[in-house]
Amino acid sequence: MNLDSVISVLDMLGIAVFAVSGALVAARKEMDIVGFMLIGTVTGIGGGTLRDLLLGATPVFWVKQPAYVLITIGASALTYFFARFVASRMRWLTWADAVGLSVFCIIGAEAARAVTDNAVIIVVMAMLTATFGGILRDILCGEFPLLLKPEIYATAALVGAAAYLGLLGLDVGRDAAAIGGICLAFAVRGAAIAFNLKLPTYGPRPPT
Amino acid sequence: MNLDSVISVLDMLGIAVFAVSGALVAARKEMDIVGFMLIGTVTGIGGGTLRDLLLGATPVFWVKQPAYVLITIGASALTYFFARFVASRMRWLTWADAVGLSVFCIIGAEAARAVTDNAVIIVVMAMLTATFGGILRDILCGEFPLLLKPEIYATAALVGAAAYLGLLGLDVGRDAAAIGGICLAFAVRGAAIAFNLKLPTYGPRPPT
Amino acid sequence: MNLDSVISVLDMLGIAVFAVSGALVAARKEMDIVGFMLIGTVTGIGGGTLRDLLLGATPVFWVKQPAYVLITIGASALTYFFARFVASRMRWLTWADAVGLSVFCIIGAEAARAVTDNAVIIVVMAMLTATFGGILRDILCGEFPLLLKPEIYATAALVGAAAYLGLLGLDVGRDAAAIGGICLAFAVRGAAIAFNLKLPTYGPRPPT
Repeated sequence: MNLDSVISVLDMLGIAVFAVSGALVAARKEMDIVGFMLIGTVTGIGGGTLRDLLLGATPVFWVKQPAYVLITIGASALTYFFARFVASRMRWLTWADAVGLSVFCIIGAEAARAVTDNAVIIVVMAMLTATFGGILRDILCGEFPLLLKPEIYATAALVGAAAYLGLLGLDVGRDAAAIGGICLAFAVRGAAIAFNLKLPTYGPRPPT
Repeated sequence: MNLDSVISVLDMLGIAVFAVSGALVAARKEMDIVGFMLIGTVTGIGGGTLRDLLLGATPVFWVKQPAYVLITIGASALTYFFARFVASRMRWLTWADAVGLSVFCIIGAEAARAVTDNAVIIVVMAMLTATFGGILRDILCGEFPLLLKPEIYATAALVGAAAYLGLLGLDVGRDAAAIGGICLAFAVRGAAIAFNLKLPTYGPRPPT
Repeated sequence: MNLDSVISVLDMLGIAVFAVSGALVAARKEMDIVGFMLIGTVTGIGGGTLRDLLLGATPVFWVKQPAYVLITIGASALTYFFARFVASRMRWLTWADAVGLSVFCIIGAEAARAVTDNAVIIVVMAMLTATFGGILRDILCGEFPLLLKPEIYATAALVGAAAYLGLLGLDVGRDAAAIGGICLAFAVRGAAIAFNLKLPTYGPRPPT
């Protein structure tokens, strides 16, 4: 069992967890099951879809591998029937979401590296892949995007992707770089969850 | 006169009706004529545009066939001057919209079949083509997306596309399959309009 | 120093100004610095990105030229630290934004001409390039899109692009046509700012 299979499994897990997070918002908005599937699917695959569009890697990944859509539809439908059960395990979901975020940022960085060598673009694509599904979920549901609150979320993807590129530059090999990036992204996001860390926000300041 | 010309005429009719539905929201928001054209155009061609982007069929269809944009601009401008007249015929509009939905879902399914054989992706593209323009309209106008209310709308596109694929599998020929899919989508949406049918929504339930 | 370098400099200036306008909304919403960069970047490059996607010109322009992203990130970060200073120069910003709008509409028109000869599509792409970043900014921040208010904004891009095409048709040469288009777009937008001009909006009217 090599690293790519592990990443692949974590990727599918992450997409399922993102879909569940979307379906839970659908539950709060009292949608029907089609609404659950739509919001769950958009949340699960939205980030990777925007990345593929911007990079010109079309048809987008889930058109080539429909299993991803089956996963988001299945996870959303299960949430429709068991939303109360799922919602009571919110703490677990938050941690599973952190795994998804960490894996997505490396998958996004690797997809970008197939098109460009530029570090800024690679990091931006990593952040997009990890965060855009959640942004779409909030816009579609008429909520203020969570990402724009001072959570350390996009920042964790930024740190993970930067670490991945830094490790690649140190010639440790792609596998070690990917593992390092995933772990660092998870550590940053995990610390933010565990200690409720936030970035400082812009606000009224004392005169200088 | 063959089926393709009929579908083509219904397609343009559908896009005009979608544009009018967008322009009517612009009227409620008291926009200027440029806003009418913008919202009307986005509503009319938004679904097919997203489909083409995801499938990698670029430039998107209306860049290749600008007549579509002329139709949405014209329909939106007419609505600006005659919105009161149009709004008083809301019932007709709802039925014309059902025709558009039915035709769009088959057009979307056929566009997807040019790229993939996968039934899930074909059905998803059919639903997207039929519904995304209306979602964009609602997001741009700051309204909660109608689609996410428990109307049987995306569901009608789903049923129509599935019927189309099923009929193709039965080897009835492409024309019969397209007609069957369009009729079934229209029947489902029409029944929902006529009898005010809705899907059950997620909500507080009695304990089991 | 030829016209292309001047346009290129004005383009980067315009993108920086658009990013600042995005970051100022982030300031009003009290976001953290990552939120500033995200909203600033989306506002600065959103219009050109949508244009490239629709035309099939992928990877989109800023993936090929990452300097654009560095500009939006830098401008957004500076705004985070100096937002109060920037906000007190709102009047200047409005005029710099008018320069950006004027340049963007010609850049958008030229990008479209590389793909199509159709005047309607070229004008639509010019309007999209100049306006979509601001629409995305408002949607992401949960505000009603400014563009949909009766400001003469998209209209200025329309006039500029039409003038550019008209001048090209008169065989004055590409440089003169571009300068004419930019100046006319700026004149229209400038008049709207200086004299607070608006288009008439749809509203209750006396019976005819």
